[in-house]
Amino acid sequence: MDLEAAKMIGAGLAAIGAGMAALGVGNVFGSFLESALRNPGAADGQQGRLFIGFAAAELLGLLAFVVAMIILFV
Amino acid sequence: MDLEAAKMIGAGLAAIGAGMAALGVGNVFGSFLESALRNPGAADGQQGRLFIGFAAAELLGLLAFVVAMIILFV
Amino acid sequence: MDLEAAKMIGAGLAAIGAGMAALGVGNVFGSFLESALRNPGAADGQQGRLFIGFAAAELLGLLAFVVAMIILFV
Amino acid sequence: MDLEAAKMIGAGLAAIGAGMAALGVGNVFGSFLESALRNPGAADGQQGRLFIGFAAAELLGLLAFVVAMIILFV
Amino acid sequence: MDLEAAKMIGAGLAAIGAGMAALGVGNVFGSFLESALRNPGAADGQQGRLFIGFAAAELLGLLAFVVAMIILFV
Repeated sequence: MDLEAAKMIGAGLAAIGAGMAALGVGNVFGSFLESALRNPGAADGQQGRLFIGFAAAELLGLLAFVVAMIILFV
Repeated sequence: MDLEAAKMIGAGLAAIGAGMAALGVGNVFGSFLESALRNPGAADGQQGRLFIGFAAAELLGLLAFVVAMIILFV
Repeated sequence: MDLEAAKMIGAGLAAIGAGMAALGVGNVFGSFLESALRNPGAADGQQGRLFIGFAAAELLGLLAFVVAMIILFV
Repeated sequence: MDLEAAKMIGAGLAAIGAGMAALGVGNVFGSFLESALRNPGAADGQQGRLFIGFAAAELLGLLAFVVAMIILFV
Repeated sequence: MDLEAAKMIGAGLAAIGAGMAALGVGNVFGSFLESALRNPGAADGQQGRLFIGFAAAELLGLLAFVVAMIILFV
């Protein structure tokens, strides 16, 4: 297998990682929304932690995308 | 394996990532709807966070789709 | 398969690991937020353990990213 | 496939294992936080078992990282 | 594929098994902690079974690590 062909397959594998991280982001927001609707008054006080958790999970997905871009273009 | 053949396999792998991100998006909307029907009055106040969470999970799926397009056409 | 080609595929595989760790991070924050909205008064007292758990799960995802970088550039 | 090429692919596979262990760590902390917020008074008494469980799951992820390092550099 | 190259890929696959066992360990401790905080008085009486379950799940992960070591060095 030559280099150009392997780049295509490697980037495809890295894209699976990017998609999988969406599951983690979905868990953070899903759990937050489920409880925010049960107790709307307390939702604003937890917003800081919501965005920390969202950023942490999104970061790992973006790292997988960065790996895909490095494989393709660097 | 030559380059054209590897493009097909790489794009197919990246499409798995796109499909997996749908699970995360489904978690966000599923949890929101489940609770919005239990407490419909509070649903409008959480709509902003719903769309932030939806966009964050959808973004990761679109990144996987972008990788598939780059593999096929760039 | 020559060395350069294998580096691309190996880094792609490691990126799957990085994406998977986002699931663990999402679980920690999701469970915390769900319960913090049910009992907001106690949320501040558990914040230390929240960040220990988040760091532990994030560390494993960053290790997978580090492996991808070592494969590509070392 | 020559030896150097196989090292890259083997290390990439091992990194998937490191990322997967983050799921286990996330489960331990997620379950603990969920219940600690429901019954904050008892949380301090279970802290010892929390850290035993966290260390046991983290150990397995670090073992997978150790395997990746052994494959690459030993 | 020659023998040395296959050893690297085999050890990488075994490390995925080690990481997956962390999921089982996380389930054991997560479920225990969740219920121990709901009924703290009974937690000490179940500690023996907790450590049996933890050891059984951890053992399987360590077996996968042992397989990786045997593949690499024996």
